[in-house]
Amino acid sequence: MFTLIKQEGHARRGSFVTAHGIVQTPVFMNVGTQAAIKGALSSEDLERIDCQVELSNTYHLHIRPGDTLIRSQGGLHRFMVWDRPILTDSGGFQIFSLARLRKISEEGVAFNSHVDGRRIFMSPEDCMRIQSNLGSDIAMAFDECVEIPSPREYVKKSCDRTYRWLVRCCDALAKLKETQDTVNPGQMLFGINQGAVYPDLRIRHMKQIAELDLPGYAIGGLAVGETAPEMYDIIEAVEEHMPKEKPRYLMGVGTPGNIIEGTARGVDFFDCVMPARNGNKRQLFTWSGIINIKNEKYANDSGKIDDQCACPVCMRYSRAYLRHLFKAGEMLALRLAVMHNLFFYNNLMSRIRNALDNGAFQAFRLEYSEILDQRI
Amino acid sequence: MFTLIKQEGHARRGSFVTAHGIVQTPVFMNVGTQAAIKGALSSEDLERIDCQVELSNTYHLHIRPGDTLIRSQGGLHRFMVWDRPILTDSGGFQIFSLARLRKISEEGVAFNSHVDGRRIFMSPEDCMRIQSNLGSDIAMAFDECVEIPSPREYVKKSCDRTYRWLVRCCDALAKLKETQDTVNPGQMLFGINQGAVYPDLRIRHMKQIAELDLPGYAIGGLAVGETAPEMYDIIEAVEEHMPKEKPRYLMGVGTPGNIIEGTARGVDFFDCVMPARNGNKRQLFTWSGIINIKNEKYANDSGKIDDQCACPVCMRYSRAYLRHLFKAGEMLALRLAVMHNLFFYNNLMSRIRNALDNGAFQAFRLEYSEILDQRI
Repeated sequence: MFTLIKQEGHARRGSFVTAHGIVQTPVFMNVGTQAAIKGALSSEDLERIDCQVELSNTYHLHIRPGDTLIRSQGGLHRFMVWDRPILTDSGGFQIFSLARLRKISEEGVAFNSHVDGRRIFMSPEDCMRIQSNLGSDIAMAFDECVEIPSPREYVKKSCDRTYRWLVRCCDALAKLKETQDTVNPGQMLFGINQGAVYPDLRIRHMKQIAELDLPGYAIGGLAVGETAPEMYDIIEAVEEHMPKEKPRYLMGVGTPGNIIEGTARGVDFFDCVMPARNGNKRQLFTWSGIINIKNEKYANDSGKIDDQCACPVCMRYSRAYLRHLFKAGEMLALRLAVMHNLFFYNNLMSRIRNALDNGAFQAFRLEYSEILDQRI
Repeated sequence: MFTLIKQEGHARRGSFVTAHGIVQTPVFMNVGTQAAIKGALSSEDLERIDCQVELSNTYHLHIRPGDTLIRSQGGLHRFMVWDRPILTDSGGFQIFSLARLRKISEEGVAFNSHVDGRRIFMSPEDCMRIQSNLGSDIAMAFDECVEIPSPREYVKKSCDRTYRWLVRCCDALAKLKETQDTVNPGQMLFGINQGAVYPDLRIRHMKQIAELDLPGYAIGGLAVGETAPEMYDIIEAVEEHMPKEKPRYLMGVGTPGNIIEGTARGVDFFDCVMPARNGNKRQLFTWSGIINIKNEKYANDSGKIDDQCACPVCMRYSRAYLRHLFKAGEMLALRLAVMHNLFFYNNLMSRIRNALDNGAFQAFRLEYSEILDQRI
């Protein structure tokens, strides 16, 4: 159940009730693809950095360790010991980006596992069964994530099929939730809008899926190579046709600036691997821009990464120490960098929510939308 | 200042006062070679697993980030944010095992850095200056760590030189501690006994260094390829000649069984990379023996690593989850494994101390000395 608390322009301040607690939106979901967070962060660390929603991946967990194993361990919440909300991505994106020898049909997709090459077939019903076994709070629909650019005709046909798959997902999950031993009876399904960068196809598809009255809707297939202005244009075109009383999730986006701009365009949920990926590249987010901690100028710098940051890393360690850890190739470097960056993203969302609460989001946007993405 | 609290056979229960707190002995020192613990553990994690003493390495920190940088950051305690005792190994072992093109003279050792190949010269005085810059609570003497086997005549000459170096270390550190801006005025020097596996040379050298009345003495040059019985024989031969009122440190040892047997022979301080190294190899210590967590039989095992263990990993995660993390190649696997193993070692020492307090060490030794090292 989504409650729209306040609005400022298109930007929305809301809350969303799940089987594992209420999510305050706008929210950034912390990515734990394989039921683990990159940089050796544990689910306990996620609690410490005020993560609201953990995001895992259907495709990866189906392949390893297997969703039936996780089910037999009591579901994903118990398996990874995380009792706050979990969203599971459907695996559509991974099947279309990672798996090999992919063959798509009306029934579903056949592909080779990227781990051991074994042939796997996944239908919308399979995808729902897997996510039901995982027991996430939010299951994502099984969709085809088309490349950008793709021919218009192909995208149109793909959208129609993705719509038919969505109808099948709804039916399948409804049946699974009726079974006695379902892992999470409160599991919800979000639909995913596709249509590449063709606004009319995006809108047509959005109108179709909106009619299914799902608990939430995502904009998928973006952040796959298009420019930021193209992405913003698509969000603006689609947003108008998204139900106001349902949360909107912009999949796989993005930089701090992208998130502020997405919020300004009416998005409520975000996720991105960037905090971990940048951490691995020694790039740390600060409220003045992005720093490269391996830079010589930090060698003897006893200050914290960011004066404005209250994360467990900034509260304890210096830039000089963190730089040393990277130079020395210590694994701890990655952990502290990822922890700081994830805290930064969660804190960014908290500040966006505060700004919305106080009717000060536009001022916040003006102050930070550009500066946070700059390398300094 | 060392206080011998209780004895059972040769085994000793004691306490040792340092500038950063009192160490309860027997103690296992947790290895953080480059001012960081393997497996992405932080100094905060060390506090959580009840580590008493952190051990860093003179050679490594001199090369990277440099001891003068650490001094300018307020010393090693402040640099890595650890306010309990620190022991710094002198680098002798690393120079003789890692560095290339080594040339030893009466004055000291010239060698090439294993990081960038640059030529470095280290004398006993240099070694003390570096450790003074680091500001550890216990500095180790600069010694030659001779290979086993080595010709008797070479070992004899080497021991004599190591003794002369120790005298120079004493003088150098005494002067450094008198300077106004010394990092740690309470820094103490431990001497290191050498002599390979020649009992008479070991004893002769031990008698020499004992006369210097240092705050503590180590047995070095063991655990470098000799058999366990050979090692125990050397400890027994030397121990008789070690001052009773000073702590004894057996360097680089060893398995849980080795530590129990070392304690039984009068040793007070231990250190070893084994908890981290075994963790990296999926081998986890338990009170029933060593398990390989990647074993198929743990795939669906919801139990904790060790029923008897109260470490942060066992209190939260299952064997099935940990096995999955290893299979999936997640960095978190290493962190949890190393954390469990280090906790096990610290807990082993706590149980040894309790046994000694209760006059039950021999019973403890009989029960655990063999079983803990067995792979099950």
